[in-house]
Amino acid sequence: MRTQRYRLILEYDGTHFAGWQIQPGKRTVQGEVEKALGELFQEKVRVTAAGRTDAGVHARGQVVHFDARHFRPVRGILLGLNTLLPDDVAVRQVEPVPSSFDARFSAVWRQYCYRIVQRPTALLRRYAWVFLQELNVHDMQRCAEEIRGEHDFRAFCSAQAEANHYRCTVYRANWEYERNDRLTFTIVANRFLHNMVRILVGTMVEVGKGKYSPEDFRRMLQSRDRTEAGPTAPPQGLFLEKVAYAESA
Amino acid sequence: MRTQRYRLILEYDGTHFAGWQIQPGKRTVQGEVEKALGELFQEKVRVTAAGRTDAGVHARGQVVHFDARHFRPVRGILLGLNTLLPDDVAVRQVEPVPSSFDARFSAVWRQYCYRIVQRPTALLRRYAWVFLQELNVHDMQRCAEEIRGEHDFRAFCSAQAEANHYRCTVYRANWEYERNDRLTFTIVANRFLHNMVRILVGTMVEVGKGKYSPEDFRRMLQSRDRTEAGPTAPPQGLFLEKVAYAESA
Repeated sequence: MRTQRYRLILEYDGTHFAGWQIQPGKRTVQGEVEKALGELFQEKVRVTAAGRTDAGVHARGQVVHFDARHFRPVRGILLGLNTLLPDDVAVRQVEPVPSSFDARFSAVWRQYCYRIVQRPTALLRRYAWVFLQELNVHDMQRCAEEIRGEHDFRAFCSAQAEANHYRCTVYRANWEYERNDRLTFTIVANRFLHNMVRILVGTMVEVGKGKYSPEDFRRMLQSRDRTEAGPTAPPQGLFLEKVAYAESA
Repeated sequence: MRTQRYRLILEYDGTHFAGWQIQPGKRTVQGEVEKALGELFQEKVRVTAAGRTDAGVHARGQVVHFDARHFRPVRGILLGLNTLLPDDVAVRQVEPVPSSFDARFSAVWRQYCYRIVQRPTALLRRYAWVFLQELNVHDMQRCAEEIRGEHDFRAFCSAQAEANHYRCTVYRANWEYERNDRLTFTIVANRFLHNMVRILVGTMVEVGKGKYSPEDFRRMLQSRDRTEAGPTAPPQGLFLEKVAYAESA
């Protein structure tokens, strides 16, 4: 039987989710999206995501695909899903795609941002790492430059993670001040390992505090040993911003 | 007995507050701040705010003053309060001020922003009015220009409000796109009436939808009659941004 494949762009607030991936007895984004799709299409629907974000991590541009036996107009899916989904998940875009499209495997790059706020804040506490100590951003930027290109990122991958290999190509890595108290790390790469952005940020912040030098950071990268790198930064500063595909470049 | 007066700059997330002002049995920002100050100074402390924000309204730059019998170093007050206060209130700045300073009566202007988001969103739902219909922003901007200068704003004041007079001087009023899906109204005035910004926004949005013309809007302003103006926009889009004082200009 022929099915129709769709692509969705999702925004979500990760605060009250145990992450993207379905887990029994836990509230997950995948679980909520599949439940809403099941109600809308009146059939069991499974979704595949470009990035499996962890508990507490947010997304502005998560991309997923799913197949449905019934065709429905795109606008009806958009409105229907946004009505059925809880307030902390929103569908930004719906598109029918060819069945060759795969949200995970067709992605050519993913962009994450990590936000640090350097002042007491009530409005951004769920959407940033509030960090009040002074940071040497110049040294942090030198670390960001160090990771550009292809490297083995095993030192910056959660020790529990299983991966065939640890090579990733970083196309962009940058620290920037948004205002004078909001510092954002932007990274674009072909793939990301488990906890990679958060361990990179956690380690670069140690460099910013002066605990390590940019040269120490380079040695950590070369060590391919998780125990050499710094701590994992908290999840609420991390956002999956955007996923790019060859056909929409 | 001599007391020391302090000025605080506060940021708060209005979502879970019944507004600024203390009310028996309700969770209010004033209540939380006075409780924290009471613990820190070990005496009963009353605070006065520049703007008494309503339930659900946020602040990035609320200014308050209070008197304490004991002098304490500014840094200790900042850290102590941020430890004692709940997560949805943060102190951004503490300063000793002369006893002639009054957060409410010394203020020369206040700035509010109202944010509208024109796409489905999970991350901004508590910090914006999500409004998916198209808006004629050009006509809304014509209304904003109409209110600049000194006017009687009785038509844009909650009917229950009691005020000696309804004249306000608007120094700045502007609609601007932050990105292509975030529309922000910024208004600066010497004083604001109860619900004034939200009724102005609610009415200008009716103009943006095409229900009224900018000329209708001008007639509403001239009518001085609340029943002529449009509905009150929801609170979660409104932020008290900044309060200015003559001595810190």
